[in-house]
Amino acid sequence: MSTQAELSDDCTTLVHDLARDARSAQRVLARMSDTEKADALHAAAASLRDDAPTILKENAKDIAAGESNGLSKAMLDRLKLDTDRLNGIADAVDAVADLPDPVGQVIDQSTAPTGLKLQRIRIPIGVIGIIYESRPNVTADAASLCVRAGNATILRGGSEAVYSNRAIHAAMVKGLATKGVPEAAVQLMPTQDRAAVGAMLQASGLIDMIVPRGGKGLVARVQSDARVPVLAHLDGINHTYIHDKANPEMARAIALNAKMRRTGICGAMETLLIDSKFPNAADVVGDLIDGGCEVRGDSRARALDKRIGMAGANDWDTEYLDAVVSLKIVDGLDDALDHIARHSSGHTDVIITDDDEAGERFLTEVDSAIVMRNTSSQFADGGEFGLGAEIGIATGRIHARGPVALEGLTTYKWQVRGEGQTRA
Amino acid sequence: MSTQAELSDDCTTLVHDLARDARSAQRVLARMSDTEKADALHAAAASLRDDAPTILKENAKDIAAGESNGLSKAMLDRLKLDTDRLNGIADAVDAVADLPDPVGQVIDQSTAPTGLKLQRIRIPIGVIGIIYESRPNVTADAASLCVRAGNATILRGGSEAVYSNRAIHAAMVKGLATKGVPEAAVQLMPTQDRAAVGAMLQASGLIDMIVPRGGKGLVARVQSDARVPVLAHLDGINHTYIHDKANPEMARAIALNAKMRRTGICGAMETLLIDSKFPNAADVVGDLIDGGCEVRGDSRARALDKRIGMAGANDWDTEYLDAVVSLKIVDGLDDALDHIARHSSGHTDVIITDDDEAGERFLTEVDSAIVMRNTSSQFADGGEFGLGAEIGIATGRIHARGPVALEGLTTYKWQVRGEGQTRA
Repeated sequence: MSTQAELSDDCTTLVHDLARDARSAQRVLARMSDTEKADALHAAAASLRDDAPTILKENAKDIAAGESNGLSKAMLDRLKLDTDRLNGIADAVDAVADLPDPVGQVIDQSTAPTGLKLQRIRIPIGVIGIIYESRPNVTADAASLCVRAGNATILRGGSEAVYSNRAIHAAMVKGLATKGVPEAAVQLMPTQDRAAVGAMLQASGLIDMIVPRGGKGLVARVQSDARVPVLAHLDGINHTYIHDKANPEMARAIALNAKMRRTGICGAMETLLIDSKFPNAADVVGDLIDGGCEVRGDSRARALDKRIGMAGANDWDTEYLDAVVSLKIVDGLDDALDHIARHSSGHTDVIITDDDEAGERFLTEVDSAIVMRNTSSQFADGGEFGLGAEIGIATGRIHARGPVALEGLTTYKWQVRGEGQTRA
Repeated sequence: MSTQAELSDDCTTLVHDLARDARSAQRVLARMSDTEKADALHAAAASLRDDAPTILKENAKDIAAGESNGLSKAMLDRLKLDTDRLNGIADAVDAVADLPDPVGQVIDQSTAPTGLKLQRIRIPIGVIGIIYESRPNVTADAASLCVRAGNATILRGGSEAVYSNRAIHAAMVKGLATKGVPEAAVQLMPTQDRAAVGAMLQASGLIDMIVPRGGKGLVARVQSDARVPVLAHLDGINHTYIHDKANPEMARAIALNAKMRRTGICGAMETLLIDSKFPNAADVVGDLIDGGCEVRGDSRARALDKRIGMAGANDWDTEYLDAVVSLKIVDGLDDALDHIARHSSGHTDVIITDDDEAGERFLTEVDSAIVMRNTSSQFADGGEFGLGAEIGIATGRIHARGPVALEGLTTYKWQVRGEGQTRA
């Protein structure tokens, strides 16, 4: 019998081998042109459609296992594929193929006093690890974004989707290979052993970046254990501040949309701040409660409507991801800015105001990845931002912030062209 | 007596308190205009000049301690300040003040189909920790770059420069304060306890980025222990490849300069690759040896000159930082690219050639932070690249690569301006 330590050593060896193969494959990918990569991704999309019967058959195994393991209905629904959903996955791969290639873009250029000509050029990051849960579409989404930007990728999906992920991966690799993309450019971890995840997180220098996609538990574990840089999405404790000069109808419509359009997404509003001088606060709150939202307020807020419950100290730091909102009455812009600075998770914060000075101060002084005026935080999304797709929304402060798509999967290098200059 | 664990707990509390104070101070700094920050830095430079007698007196204590602790002459020289050096430090602070403010720059903008107006705006990263050794000028350099880009900073210098660092820090803070920069915006760690360094490295969410500046031991420890993102410089195993179509005189001059101008800097050439078809290899090698360089070659290289020693397997992965170079004969561009892919540390690699196709292939396919044609790797430097200064040269792959100055000390946020849009 193997000990835990032996298993862990085996996983480390495995991950290092996968990563070295990925690095070699990435060198091939890095030399492929825009058109070659686009063609390869279209071939991958076609292959996903061709393999639909196999993929759906494999997906049925995951569903059966999930049912016997007592997965929730919501989990089973996320896991479930049908022809429409699979076509959607293939369409998304085609859409990524049609995005502009970021590789080779000139970021800036200059000529030094020595006559050296300098350019910063966008290049792939290299080898990217994706660690994700349940939804099998991530296999295709993440792989296609990585390939489009010239990166090799090592995918490690959840156990509950293992058959689906294998089938989707096999179809994509087959399609990509017809256009010269090496098999090792898109790899699926061949084991569900959790020690392999640990080995990925430790593979500094072999894996260049890890993107965790899943619940808070997964992301927190990745962030705490990783030696490899992590592009992570943590909380979305998003505020909407209704300024005293807000248009009342706009404020009602935006507050309701920001909370209730979809309560489970990271861009949903979690705390509503209403200025004490805003005259229509009761209408805004009434809309939310009538719409099925539980409102938890401070004592001043509770005077607005009898149906408002009492907010506890934790409510200001809670991401409900549900039909619940915390409500606080604030005294002017500075009070709102102060609350946001203390409680925002740095995802998306919004002001509603017709006052340009207040609006600009809010957009300048709030330090979140996304700051908005007069619109709904539910727009915090790569597609809505015109990025075409997203690998995730980053809540960290370096490399990339907010919705991350192809550019966030690149880095740059300096190209320097001389004519024989030596340094004095 | 305190236990190790108690000391470590004390240091964690200390670092968390410093970081929270830094965060508050950073909010003030983030609201200061270009001119206000520039004025504050000029005041800091003036204060350094005013306090010269004190700073030199304190520096003398470090020198005396260093002498009695048996520091090497080279170390003592790096530590030593005099009026000229101190003026140089103050001049560098003035120069940083005169650099363009990166904060508020619009990176890009677009209008979404919904009519939402999107802009990405450069903003400070936040709180930056700098962990460094011996040279007291880093105290002023790092502090001024951080302030210029609107960041608060926590400086932790080496024990051997503790008096100098305190005096420089005190002078700068005094000058900055006259122009409204809060004292906590530039902090010097008040203890030399190494547990405080550990606490900085673990202060995820409180410190936003760590920049280690020093020898490999320091950088490696920071990289391995940090939970906070690290902007690090590791090895500079830099290659110069003399292609068969290289201009012979240019090749001689560049190879000699790349190795021998200063052998101890990270941009120095460490491996010379000469194409087997390049006719003047013996001249290039002769110049190096005559210039005092030890050359270690493979068997084909050794045929060029009797004075060439035998390279061992480790030589291709060694950063000498000394008058030593490894020399390998390669068969064409692909052979050179392959050697570089296996052995380069990703810092700076150079091709010398008059052939445009080979030159462009090298600049495209070599994956290092800096790739050069027809010039010396010794130009790998923020000043030479026109950045005005540098916080360091980054050899990682994300956030920033190569020489890092003000832009690398910023991140961005998305500003979104709507007119009442809600998401469907």
